[in-house]
Amino acid sequence: MGEQKKSDRPLILITNDDGIQAKGIFSLIEVAKDFGDIVIVAPDKPQSGMGHAITVNNVLRLSRSPLFPDYEAYTCSGTPVDCVKLAISEVIKGRPSILLSGINHGENSASNVLYSGTMSAAVEGAMEDIPSVGFSLLDFDADADFSGAKWAAKQVIAKMLENDFPRSICLNVNVPQLPTEELKGIKICRQAKAYWRDNFDKRHDQFGKPYYWLTGDFNRSDRSEDTDIWALDNGYVSVVPTQFDMTAYHAISQINEWGL
Amino acid sequence: MGEQKKSDRPLILITNDDGIQAKGIFSLIEVAKDFGDIVIVAPDKPQSGMGHAITVNNVLRLSRSPLFPDYEAYTCSGTPVDCVKLAISEVIKGRPSILLSGINHGENSASNVLYSGTMSAAVEGAMEDIPSVGFSLLDFDADADFSGAKWAAKQVIAKMLENDFPRSICLNVNVPQLPTEELKGIKICRQAKAYWRDNFDKRHDQFGKPYYWLTGDFNRSDRSEDTDIWALDNGYVSVVPTQFDMTAYHAISQINEWGL
Repeated sequence: MGEQKKSDRPLILITNDDGIQAKGIFSLIEVAKDFGDIVIVAPDKPQSGMGHAITVNNVLRLSRSPLFPDYEAYTCSGTPVDCVKLAISEVIKGRPSILLSGINHGENSASNVLYSGTMSAAVEGAMEDIPSVGFSLLDFDADADFSGAKWAAKQVIAKMLENDFPRSICLNVNVPQLPTEELKGIKICRQAKAYWRDNFDKRHDQFGKPYYWLTGDFNRSDRSEDTDIWALDNGYVSVVPTQFDMTAYHAISQINEWGL
Repeated sequence: MGEQKKSDRPLILITNDDGIQAKGIFSLIEVAKDFGDIVIVAPDKPQSGMGHAITVNNVLRLSRSPLFPDYEAYTCSGTPVDCVKLAISEVIKGRPSILLSGINHGENSASNVLYSGTMSAAVEGAMEDIPSVGFSLLDFDADADFSGAKWAAKQVIAKMLENDFPRSICLNVNVPQLPTEELKGIKICRQAKAYWRDNFDKRHDQFGKPYYWLTGDFNRSDRSEDTDIWALDNGYVSVVPTQFDMTAYHAISQINEWGL
């Protein structure tokens, strides 16, 4: 470990939240390999919905994966954010040129960015000052068609490597489930104000005790033309520059008036 | 369940991430009981560092807790965000007047807001349009002295109930570990740009296989006087208005220039 930078090509760290066996990470690797040298550190099992969780009360395992014999590839027993931290500290022993997360099986637009392990890995990259991006396809199917998402990833990775990347942000890229030729283009957007209407499916186990499955409907409101939801609903790939400064600057003066 | 609103007093939902047995939640309940009727839905085990994680690949349990016989109190098998979702959908069957999370054993200033289960519960409250606040004390000790934090919580809860609460935000309140009389006051701040320098403690198990503990140092840089870090290091309680719109609006024009 720690000797990945064998060439002058960019060093590309790849992770995801669906786990190392997911079709989405294979798709991302196929695109990324043309841009640089690849290191993979991905969860050993699905970690969807893990948000920015880290493992503090348990140990982490890091194991060489046989799935990608051409690359330095590891599985991690923790969350996507754990993967990024372990990759930097123990695998690369430094920062990669760029960090790619995904391609997620399922949408991470609007407020989903907060629940998304895919995006939290990218946010962690931004906190480490690494140009980082999370890719998501609007299709939960394990065998989804990633051709449109691969096209989008190729465009975005090329531009990331060509341009100065703004500090303290990452990119949240979502791709509609359309054939590549039907994608209308790529739009830079803001995060829509759209939320889940939660519901719980209450069932009873073999002992008669209740348990709950989290379910719900995603309320695709806030369809202003500058939102990711609008872009996706109109056939565009959405790109939201995403920051980890969560300060609500506009509210500081109002709270100051409380006289605390 | 669903019949909590027995009085005209505010209905106060209380959760945390250290679990229902933590001293911090007992302290918060002691303060909150004077302000309204209390419902408690807290994790059945420590959930520190869970960020905005939700349980999507497993079932959730919700059980009446015997720890608080005077209140409607439940434990949940999931994360702090799961607790908020279950409280709204299955316990209260509606929105409480306010949501209080904590008091956390340990600091949640600066970028810790992203890792914090305490704060993610408050952020989830904000997404549900509930005036919400997370409280944290700068002391990890299980038997920490919460007297200063209780004083701060009392001030903040009173003002939350007296004033209009800005929409789409919550409050991140951190309290230095000082005797109440040495607290210099309460400052409304921005989230400092301060990060963890991660480190992993690599050990070997009884079979000789490596495992890792996440560790590190919190780099208290960015000591501008308007930050939470400055406030805390100078004896003030910090209050950061915190939003869940993570769009980096300032970066949209720069990314647009990439010509994607």
